This record gives sequence, C-alpha cells and structure tokens, in this order.
Amino acid sequence: MKKNLGPVNALYPTPIVLVGTVVDGKINYINIAHIGIIDMNTMSISMGKIHHSNKGIKENKTLSINLPSDDMVVEADYVGLVSGAMVDKSQVFESFFGELKNAPMIKNAPVSMECEVIDILNMPNHDVFLVKAKNTYCNEEVLTDGRIDLAKVKPMFFDMHQRKYWKLGEAFAKCWSIGRSYTK
Amino acid sequence: MKKNLGPVNALYPTPIVLVGTVVDGKINYINIAHIGIIDMNTMSISMGKIHHSNKGIKENKTLSINLPSDDMVVEADYVGLVSGAMVDKSQVFESFFGELKNAPMIKNAPVSMECEVIDILNMPNHDVFLVKAKNTYCNEEVLTDGRIDLAKVKPMFFDMHQRKYWKLGEAFAKCWSIGRSYTK
Repeated sequence: MKKNLGPVNALYPTPIVLVGTVVDGKINYINIAHIGIIDMNTMSISMGKIHHSNKGIKENKTLSINLPSDDMVVEADYVGLVSGAMVDKSQVFESFFGELKNAPMIKNAPVSMECEVIDILNMPNHDVFLVKAKNTYCNEEVLTDGRIDLAKVKPMFFDMHQRKYWKLGEAFAKCWSIGRSYTK
Repeated sequence: MKKNLGPVNALYPTPIVLVGTVVDGKINYINIAHIGIIDMNTMSISMGKIHHSNKGIKENKTLSINLPSDDMVVEADYVGLVSGAMVDKSQVFESFFGELKNAPMIKNAPVSMECEVIDILNMPNHDVFLVKAKNTYCNEEVLTDGRIDLAKVKPMFFDMHQRKYWKLGEAFAKCWSIGRSYTK
C-alpha cells in the first residue's frame, strides 16, 4: 500500500560536507547536508540565512567544501551544533590553504575543494551558494589509480527523517553498464 | 601528502533518483544523480539539455522523483542508458499517478514525490529544475514509527570518480547529538 506523507522532502540521505569560511578574519567551519550538483563542476550549498558563515562567504566570494570521513563524526556534528558567532571553531580542525585566500580547508579531511562563488540564489530563509571548484585536494591514501576511491574516503550521510548519520556501504554495480542486461 | 587533482567535482556519492515525466503524451523515466536540496522542501534536478525528458518537464511544469531500492539497479541503470526519443521506456516500471496529471510515479519504488517546477536555472549545458514536492508517497513497509526508514528504502548512490553504484551502509550516530561529546 502507498501512503501519502504530504509534501515531505525525501531526497535523503545526502553527503555531509564541512564548509570552510573566513568570517571577520577568523576561520570557521559548519556542517551542511543541503548540497547539490548543478552541472559538471558547479555545486550548490544551501545555508539558512541565520548562519554566521554566510556573512564571510558573501564578503569573500569563496568557501571550501570538505568531505569528512565517518571517523570525524564527533567534530563534524559539533561544528553544526554551535555558531561561530558565539564559539571560536577555528581550532576544531587543523587548516591549510590553497590558491584562494579565504577558503580554509581541513587537513584531516580526505577530500577538500576550494571554491569560488559564482552566484547566490536568494530563497526565503536560505542563501544558496552556487560554487565552482578551483582546486580539489585529497590525501594520497584515498586515491586508487589516480582517482578518488570512496571506499577509502568513507563519507557520511545525513538523514533528516530519522536524524541519523549513515555510513557508505559497498560498491555493487557499474554505472552505464549493468543496465545493458535489462530485458522486459 | 595532499595531492591537487585540479578542478574536480568531488561532491559524490549522491543518491540516484528516477525522474518521471510525460513527453509527447508518453510516460518516460530517466536516471539522475545530479540532484540537490535547495531549501527545506525545494529540490534541484540537473539534466543535460540534450535529454528527451526536459521537453516534457518544460511543457508540463511537473515531474516526479522516485528513489529506487538497490535491487532495482538494472532497470535504474537501463533508463539512463537509452533515450526516450529512441526507445519506449513507459513499460519499464509500473506507474501510478497522484494529484498531478503529468508526474508518473513508480509503483515499485519505495518512495516517490510528485513535484511542481517552480523555476529553471539555465546553465550552459544543463537545465536545472527547481521543484517542490506536492505529495510524497511511500510503501508502508519502509516506514518506522510513521517516518521513512532508509534501512528499509535501501537507496543507491552514484560515484562519478569510479563510475560505480554504492549501497547505503549502517546508521552509526545521531545528528545534532553526538557532537555534544566534543572536547578539544
């Protein structure tokens, strides 16, 4: 039987990312799951307008997107619990910089992108930052044949329905391939 | 050691969805992984302009978003391999309709949203449909205490780096909770 839940956003789980910014001269990180892929190298980061990070992003037109490993869950959840307006989060992670001045990245994160903001969608309660990766840094240990290997990255996912974090499971099929075996 | 891969979109893996449309009076489905959450009930679906589905979405201003279970991987991959302009995909899945006339949904999918298009971002090679769920239908078997239970949904994820589909792993922590144990 189908049950109608009403207008529920059921597009979960989505990967958790840690967004790095500089706000009023201070490094800040926040946990964001409302992300998207807009085109091949354009991504969206949706952030409630109340967040402290938004000010720095608007001023600098830069941010970083860091994929935490699931063993970083305590720190990742923590930077989503407290505001940079109240608490100094600059030391939660060890930071490094690439080409962009105001896009601090997390040394311990397996994958980090330094990004330029190309547009902002002004939603009623959210700023949606459309960004392009300028450079993508990763720990060499997470590469297999020169490509990012998600089994080594161990990303984590956010589930709004039950407010849980989930691990990635196993790879089980090849894209643009397994469908060739389809027969009606 | 950090390795710079250049401007690589590393925002994977993302959940695979099957987008349902009516194009020239015929039901069509396509496999899309370039999705996003824009605000609480607004989602983005990014589709290369060459796709057949886009025409129907633009005409009807509706679409559906269906989350396939990982056991639907053959059909899910298949509808991403062939174009509705060449092949009739209307019978790959058994369809049902809700309130909206042109948003066919997949009976066998554990979760389906019928959506209205509220805006379209015109990117160089992609139409990005911003949509709001009007109704969200799910199979009763995937609910726990009235909420969608992802362990029962068994969504699948797309990985552009290695072109693999991944399963969901286990839930391992509570959001807005585990971070309270953080100490520097």
